[in-house]
Amino acid sequence: MSSPSVNNRDMANAIRALSTDAIEQAGIGHLGLPLGMADAATVLFSQFLKFDASKPDWADRDRFILSAGHGSMLIYSLLHLTGYPSVSMEEIRNFRQLGSKTPGHPENFVTEGVETTTGPLGQGIATAVGFAVAERSMNARYGDDLVDHYTYVIAGDGCLMEGISQEAIALAGHLKLGKLIVLFDDNAVTIDGGTDVADSTDQCARFAASKWHVQAIDGHDPVAVAAALTAAKANTDQPSMIACKTTIGFGAPTFAGQGKAHGGPYPADETAALRENLGLPKERFTVVPEVLEAWRAVGVRASDERAGWEASLAASGKADEFTRAMDGRLPAGVDEAVNAHKKAVSEANKSDATRKWSGAALEVLTGIIPEMIGGSADLTGSNNTRTSHTSALNSSDWAGRYMHYGVREHGMAAAMNGMALHGGVFPYSGTFMAFADYSRGAIRLGALMEAPVVHVMTHDSIGLGEDGPTHQPVEHVASLRAMPNLYVFRPCDGVETMEAWQVALGLRQSPSIMTLTRQGVVPARIEHTDENLVAKGGYILREAEGEAQIVLIGTGSEVGLALEAQELLKAKGVAARVVSMPCMDLFFEQSEAYQSEVLGGSLPKVATEAGVRFGWDAIIGTEGGFVGMTGFGASAPAEDLYKHFNITSEAVVEEALKRV
Amino acid sequence: MSSPSVNNRDMANAIRALSTDAIEQAGIGHLGLPLGMADAATVLFSQFLKFDASKPDWADRDRFILSAGHGSMLIYSLLHLTGYPSVSMEEIRNFRQLGSKTPGHPENFVTEGVETTTGPLGQGIATAVGFAVAERSMNARYGDDLVDHYTYVIAGDGCLMEGISQEAIALAGHLKLGKLIVLFDDNAVTIDGGTDVADSTDQCARFAASKWHVQAIDGHDPVAVAAALTAAKANTDQPSMIACKTTIGFGAPTFAGQGKAHGGPYPADETAALRENLGLPKERFTVVPEVLEAWRAVGVRASDERAGWEASLAASGKADEFTRAMDGRLPAGVDEAVNAHKKAVSEANKSDATRKWSGAALEVLTGIIPEMIGGSADLTGSNNTRTSHTSALNSSDWAGRYMHYGVREHGMAAAMNGMALHGGVFPYSGTFMAFADYSRGAIRLGALMEAPVVHVMTHDSIGLGEDGPTHQPVEHVASLRAMPNLYVFRPCDGVETMEAWQVALGLRQSPSIMTLTRQGVVPARIEHTDENLVAKGGYILREAEGEAQIVLIGTGSEVGLALEAQELLKAKGVAARVVSMPCMDLFFEQSEAYQSEVLGGSLPKVATEAGVRFGWDAIIGTEGGFVGMTGFGASAPAEDLYKHFNITSEAVVEEALKRV
Repeated sequence: MSSPSVNNRDMANAIRALSTDAIEQAGIGHLGLPLGMADAATVLFSQFLKFDASKPDWADRDRFILSAGHGSMLIYSLLHLTGYPSVSMEEIRNFRQLGSKTPGHPENFVTEGVETTTGPLGQGIATAVGFAVAERSMNARYGDDLVDHYTYVIAGDGCLMEGISQEAIALAGHLKLGKLIVLFDDNAVTIDGGTDVADSTDQCARFAASKWHVQAIDGHDPVAVAAALTAAKANTDQPSMIACKTTIGFGAPTFAGQGKAHGGPYPADETAALRENLGLPKERFTVVPEVLEAWRAVGVRASDERAGWEASLAASGKADEFTRAMDGRLPAGVDEAVNAHKKAVSEANKSDATRKWSGAALEVLTGIIPEMIGGSADLTGSNNTRTSHTSALNSSDWAGRYMHYGVREHGMAAAMNGMALHGGVFPYSGTFMAFADYSRGAIRLGALMEAPVVHVMTHDSIGLGEDGPTHQPVEHVASLRAMPNLYVFRPCDGVETMEAWQVALGLRQSPSIMTLTRQGVVPARIEHTDENLVAKGGYILREAEGEAQIVLIGTGSEVGLALEAQELLKAKGVAARVVSMPCMDLFFEQSEAYQSEVLGGSLPKVATEAGVRFGWDAIIGTEGGFVGMTGFGASAPAEDLYKHFNITSEAVVEEALKRV
Repeated sequence: MSSPSVNNRDMANAIRALSTDAIEQAGIGHLGLPLGMADAATVLFSQFLKFDASKPDWADRDRFILSAGHGSMLIYSLLHLTGYPSVSMEEIRNFRQLGSKTPGHPENFVTEGVETTTGPLGQGIATAVGFAVAERSMNARYGDDLVDHYTYVIAGDGCLMEGISQEAIALAGHLKLGKLIVLFDDNAVTIDGGTDVADSTDQCARFAASKWHVQAIDGHDPVAVAAALTAAKANTDQPSMIACKTTIGFGAPTFAGQGKAHGGPYPADETAALRENLGLPKERFTVVPEVLEAWRAVGVRASDERAGWEASLAASGKADEFTRAMDGRLPAGVDEAVNAHKKAVSEANKSDATRKWSGAALEVLTGIIPEMIGGSADLTGSNNTRTSHTSALNSSDWAGRYMHYGVREHGMAAAMNGMALHGGVFPYSGTFMAFADYSRGAIRLGALMEAPVVHVMTHDSIGLGEDGPTHQPVEHVASLRAMPNLYVFRPCDGVETMEAWQVALGLRQSPSIMTLTRQGVVPARIEHTDENLVAKGGYILREAEGEAQIVLIGTGSEVGLALEAQELLKAKGVAARVVSMPCMDLFFEQSEAYQSEVLGGSLPKVATEAGVRFGWDAIIGTEGGFVGMTGFGASAPAEDLYKHFNITSEAVVEEALKRV
């Protein structure tokens, strides 16, 4: 709360001053939003947002998400002014410089106080849905005393034009996420000019159509903003959208309200007049002492509440379990359960689709890991993501653990990121692998943000058959392997599938993809080992009899072809080694010695995967043979397609014989 | 129009019978939609759709797009019943079999009469926006006599849940596309159950919020459907959405209205009862003769109109130009203009960003190719996609040639696909390369559909600087190179940029990506050649002095580093060849002899590209050196980042020296 001598505008102008200074200093940045939303953000932070700047990781803090991430100086100014240790004035000065805590867009892995990385438009609001879901889920598990907080979002016109926002809005409305409150920076300007060059949507009506509580106010009027936030909180069974009519570049004499106000820096005469207009400090990178005092008071406003919460947690008898879940540590017994399952699977020695083996693995894992929350983008039965332990999670039952995301792959992936970043839950989802293309923006952001989530992607090749080339991944495995900090698993049978899950659950700073077949695969790992062989990415699955003359490498459904080819070659007197390569990313992380040992040094190599060769030369060399796809698939029964595209054990043999 | 003795339901039941038979025969397929939408589709085809089954390529036909592509038996039944030569009864029997004209999802490149490939949900409605824009654009150029047709869409709940649908709806509403009419199959069922498991959106209100004309009717009442279509056509300055309340799996006694009705085949007793209920023919794959007669009459209903149109075209004096544009042939003079530009650029010998060189190329090309329609997803100034010849294209000026797509990368890419498939226009668009992730679903569908479009993607590496890792492509070039039938160009200077455009304009069955820098690049091609060197994908840019000891390969902004390294190596007495590789896809299409010649056979190689190595081993081998990225970028000035990530000519030299 501002003191009598320091009003909301004074405090907001401190944001405006720091933003102007930093962007001018950097020579690049987006000044329009910080100038426009400073008033509303000041109301939010000073009167509503529950946080303690000295304890940025307080689990029950409200979350603030700047979906319009280009306006990053707004959040950096707020973090600095309220006293977060992460953003000193030196960092403000170093805006957008190498190694600073103030990069061009807010990055959760760089700056404490930034909840999620934003910049690609629409991601913030979609990620926020996941934060709000995680809050309700944790609330159901731990009660109001430990979990009861809001998720606030500032979103711009650009966020709302992106399709992902619709997926988020519709999902949030359906889930009645009453603790999700979006401030829409309704400035009617985008880069190409007024929004009217490209849009005629009534955003309030659009949100209302998806059952949101909607208000429209003057975003520069602190009383109106406070009243709207109060009303939004009072409306407990709908998410709220508050359209804040603002002037982009507020205070800039000739830029304000124009498309050119979006970016920066503004010309020197414009910023001079801006500073004059608003009465900003003459000296750069300074804050009027009483204004700073008021802001610092905001930063500690909830510190008593935070201390009380810590006492509640300590007294709750749930502290260990709560902390374990928030820290992302697995409960006891997982490894034992994994090994028991692996043993049973290898003994059963039966053929089935890896998507079904994944379902079986999840049946075990969700039974002992209460924070696992599954879901699917309307393909539950096909993705095998629902287990007997996961009832539907929705507004009628927040203790449920299964999200029906609807046909919304992109929103699903973003929501998972938010759930993971919130902490306390471990999300996994399901869709067809071809639709990784729809969710790729959020998959990448999750990889960048180090969000531990698992994307189950079934129907991973032409092996899905009749649905045809629109649904048949060909380049998807390669294109996802190319992405940094993303682990792509393509297990070959029931044992590898469980091992892949075990590895993925242990990757606490990386998302994973489970690439799974629709069709049945023969068991390859028929002798039990407690050791997780998938953890090394690739390994000798079946050694040659005698000295190996060639190395056959397969993944997923094609490991079976490599094993068949090994037998066929043996009959021809050729000794072939079979390597399974369920995770190329992990394999490349092994020592060169290990890689060379597995791949047989300079031995000739043939790889088989029902996808494109792209990327495989790193394993097999330019001289290596490859049995896979060279273009799009086709609609036909799977067996016909494998023959048609010549992905057969005979083809593997042929490639091998050319090279021994 | 149906005859007195054959009513709409009789005709619709012929669709239902063929759909049931075909899906039963295939043992897989989606029966719910054909059963549910047969009545409405019959009204549309028999009373409204302007087409001539004997001339599927009549340019002024109405376009019909089954956005809910899984219901493909609906369109195959319609094509067969109305007499399209492409879909014989034999093809209906071969539904979903290898080589048939009736694949699992409708594919424009397989089946004449299918306008666009659908299946990935939401793509159809978004592609339809492009069809409708192309119609208006062609109308502005050729007048009502030659171009005056509607685009009709059937979309399902799934299409409308996908985010891309929002981008399409908002864009269409803004553009007032009065000739776009969407029939929403409002059956309230998706795969996971009732839509109420995941959605609470009032779709009519949502469309109305984006300024659509909206009606809600009983989709099984032919009078209501006809009245709604009439009203939709009468409403000329808004796109129309007609919510058709239908029963999924209509006629199936226990499945109708259920989630399980979506897929198929239904159990034998269910289809038996379905056939009984609806009075379908007892014999499979037959049509009651008088019903077939009525349908065949529908197929020729507009044949006089079509003949009249052909006469109009012949008499118009515009036939050659119209046909040239529709056939996708370039006008005369392009090569001369390209060469004049290349000569001027090489002589000017100046540094600039390739995005600016692309703008200069477009200035030339849009001046002589009237069918080029540019655009950007709200980054016009950054993408350099607008020229002096391209004024804004919108409802106030359909003769304009520049689309302000809004912040809608996915919708933009899909609309471009539609424009290209409609014919007569050549679309190109602009966004930042990192946001290729947002539009990837439509980029892929365009590649599959053989849609000739160009995606301009600027800010193609860490060279964009301060915006940081969210905006810096790292794996994008690799991930797009992995996609079949997509040509990824990364030109190194002004000359290569124009050559890349020239090649892309000639690719009539493939989309292209123009990967362009934000930052300046030094000129590499300073001696003019009329020959287009980019056309071979990679070529010797600057030969070694003396016999080459090593080959340095670069793309785009890193070609300059390779050239610098060549000089540095020369000073050390090492003779290096520099190869420019602006299009790896095209390079791999060259003869092995040419590839080997350029790459110097077994000479050691070092490649440099400010992206990941993934895919490069196919060029440089596992022993080759690579100077590029290994993870995500960072926020800082570009020069600092190049140093920080060690992408420098010195690093290229170091890698080279290790290998000579």
